[in-house]
Amino acid sequence: MTKQKLVRPTPISGFPEWLPAERQVELSFMDRIRAVFEAYGFCSIETPSVETLDVLAAKGAVDKEIYVIQRLHADPDDKEARLGLHFDVTVPFARYVAQHFNELTFPFKRYQMQRVWRGERPQEGRFREFYQCDVDVINVDGLPMHFDAELPQVVDETLRAVGTGPVRLHLSNRKILEGYLKGLGVTESVAAIRLLDQFDKIGADGVEKALVDQLGFEAALAQRCVALAAIRSADASFAEQVRALDVRDELLDLGLEELAFVMEQLALRIEDGDSGNEVIADLSIARGFDYYTGTVYEGRFIDFPDFGSIVAGGRYDDLAGSYINKRLPGVGISIGLTRLFSKLMAEGRLPAGKASPTHILVILPGEEARREATQTANRLRARGFNVELYHAPQKYNRQLSYASKKGIPFVWFPPGGPGEAHEVKDMTAGVQGAADPENWTPPAA
Amino acid sequence: MTKQKLVRPTPISGFPEWLPAERQVELSFMDRIRAVFEAYGFCSIETPSVETLDVLAAKGAVDKEIYVIQRLHADPDDKEARLGLHFDVTVPFARYVAQHFNELTFPFKRYQMQRVWRGERPQEGRFREFYQCDVDVINVDGLPMHFDAELPQVVDETLRAVGTGPVRLHLSNRKILEGYLKGLGVTESVAAIRLLDQFDKIGADGVEKALVDQLGFEAALAQRCVALAAIRSADASFAEQVRALDVRDELLDLGLEELAFVMEQLALRIEDGDSGNEVIADLSIARGFDYYTGTVYEGRFIDFPDFGSIVAGGRYDDLAGSYINKRLPGVGISIGLTRLFSKLMAEGRLPAGKASPTHILVILPGEEARREATQTANRLRARGFNVELYHAPQKYNRQLSYASKKGIPFVWFPPGGPGEAHEVKDMTAGVQGAADPENWTPPAA
Repeated sequence: MTKQKLVRPTPISGFPEWLPAERQVELSFMDRIRAVFEAYGFCSIETPSVETLDVLAAKGAVDKEIYVIQRLHADPDDKEARLGLHFDVTVPFARYVAQHFNELTFPFKRYQMQRVWRGERPQEGRFREFYQCDVDVINVDGLPMHFDAELPQVVDETLRAVGTGPVRLHLSNRKILEGYLKGLGVTESVAAIRLLDQFDKIGADGVEKALVDQLGFEAALAQRCVALAAIRSADASFAEQVRALDVRDELLDLGLEELAFVMEQLALRIEDGDSGNEVIADLSIARGFDYYTGTVYEGRFIDFPDFGSIVAGGRYDDLAGSYINKRLPGVGISIGLTRLFSKLMAEGRLPAGKASPTHILVILPGEEARREATQTANRLRARGFNVELYHAPQKYNRQLSYASKKGIPFVWFPPGGPGEAHEVKDMTAGVQGAADPENWTPPAA
Repeated sequence: MTKQKLVRPTPISGFPEWLPAERQVELSFMDRIRAVFEAYGFCSIETPSVETLDVLAAKGAVDKEIYVIQRLHADPDDKEARLGLHFDVTVPFARYVAQHFNELTFPFKRYQMQRVWRGERPQEGRFREFYQCDVDVINVDGLPMHFDAELPQVVDETLRAVGTGPVRLHLSNRKILEGYLKGLGVTESVAAIRLLDQFDKIGADGVEKALVDQLGFEAALAQRCVALAAIRSADASFAEQVRALDVRDELLDLGLEELAFVMEQLALRIEDGDSGNEVIADLSIARGFDYYTGTVYEGRFIDFPDFGSIVAGGRYDDLAGSYINKRLPGVGISIGLTRLFSKLMAEGRLPAGKASPTHILVILPGEEARREATQTANRLRARGFNVELYHAPQKYNRQLSYASKKGIPFVWFPPGGPGEAHEVKDMTAGVQGAADPENWTPPAA
């Protein structure tokens, strides 16, 4: 053994890494998410992990969180564009559609399950590298509200398939907040919306105080703003509540109409009521990204209301238009896989994963039996089982102990010498008996 | 529409991106690779995209190709360790095993299918970001040669499952070259091995000339070196050829014995001869990474011999020991998915992919039929079909044209008004007839 300096590895804060049994659950989550996305006709795409900085910054989004990459020994004369790791997959998707415009069929429905990076200070549920599972549609010129209503249905079904436990989806429409503020004559609408979006965290009083203290609103005006943000409804009745506030604005009306359509469609579609998931109109929701222009979505665990969003998205009518001289409106939702997975794990709600995919461990009785054991393993594998051949002719107890440590449910004893027969041991039931590799099947669970 | 400055996107050299139909093929490749890896009992793990620079550099490997990451507006007082994107998943795997040593069962068999990054000058088949699909085993203290022989079998089966066309796997053992050179009294063995590894590219004469010109070898010595590197055999007969060269060394003998075991096991295992894949002992193979200590693997397309390796790996007895004070020998093979995929695409050998996963497009006959159409789509989806509901009540021709552009094989007409029946159109056969969403099945292909 070469003598060498030890480099003791430690976890890198914000960059999660799972043990095999945990990873197996994460992988099964991803398989189920993908299956539902495909069940609704969304195709898979992937984009590079990097984009040029000007593409990432096209809508002025969160540049302080971007990681740039650079070759360790970069040539200082290098004229290459600066590249940054993407912080979401919505901006890369919009860029993809603009770049491959002539090769796509519209409306273009895609899903994308990739890692994204944000250079934030790590805290609970916040990572610097994490998976997002996004489902989006982009169309040319106009994009029917049909899709704004389809996406929450897709996400509801996805979360049920994954088994996250109940999630509440909060829906709103940016046009409502923007139009309402316009109708009230508020000019600092971006700053006001940002404060109203905090409703869930700091409450009505907190928002009202912030509007007065930070933006100099009169108390009466602040109260009227908060009155809108306080509206919730499980159906389309939010619209009446808004009209009762007696603010008139065209953009507001359009927003109310759009959100009402989405809520009505969802009532029609989510007929299977046993998921425990809820969908509500929540007029405080605005979402942080600058590119949203209409419908906005935010989903949280019902059981962990303080945890923040695990699902988020919305409509972006102008994002892809940053990259090509066309109108390419889009709408999408992102499932924060790593966030929700790590939370379920921390709360002990994750199903037990398996550290090994192996169904059958084939015993190696001795070197002279290697050919027979190898052929047995091959035969069982050809029948669709996941099979390990033990790697050395050690004592049976040692081979069995390997199977039990790895949670391998069956151990196969091939003939150890002439005349002996195949036997299989059911590790759970503890019983052992003769078996034929050509037709053995595991007992029904 | 907001007026905005256009940021025209262009492809970033070395960072590949596929269209939906291509991506569908890539995804099916990944599914098949994963299935074979699991069929041999390897579990999935993933590691972060980054490692600290000292972890990446623990074996002195290729530091010039590393990309470092940095927050765009990093605090200059930041005391965080410098992070680099991993250039392979072997080093991260070794680090993972050292870090989680107490939580793993050994021999630990894992697969890892992740993107890796290298800041190389892009050229044909070379990417800066690409997928590698790795399968490795690490054990404590000793690692049976069983695994050195199992891995080429796994890779052979994987390549067959993917349908890459015939691949030749070149096998050698570093101990053979090293021991042989030691037996010849050569002291510059690292430099000599590097030149001998070029045998396939520059030929016997080229290597001989380089040994003489660059390392000052006498012609007779250079010839004896080249005589070893020229040895090829489809079975274990290479050992006789080496012994005929009359060089005596213990390390050489050990290497010959190990490689002979691997070749014999493979002859036993690869009984299904119709894959077109070949396995040969090729004593010129050394592989570039510093961490290999025994068996080395290199696989190339038989049809594209100049393309370079699409499969590579070997045994690394000391790598994981860089991170923990234990002996943790490992062996593994990496399939260069992006390399082989892009080559098959460039050569027109890729199977035709589908731009959409949708099996059935449900027509939306009119707004008043939305409920019935939605329910039809839901019913078909619940039966396991991938189903799109068309997004707007446009003319049937327009809806049918969407299905045909996307290659959707069936179009479903739900009742458009009272009394009408469900019908389905087979887009390939061009026939249309009555159908029941509860029990319709596609005609057998």
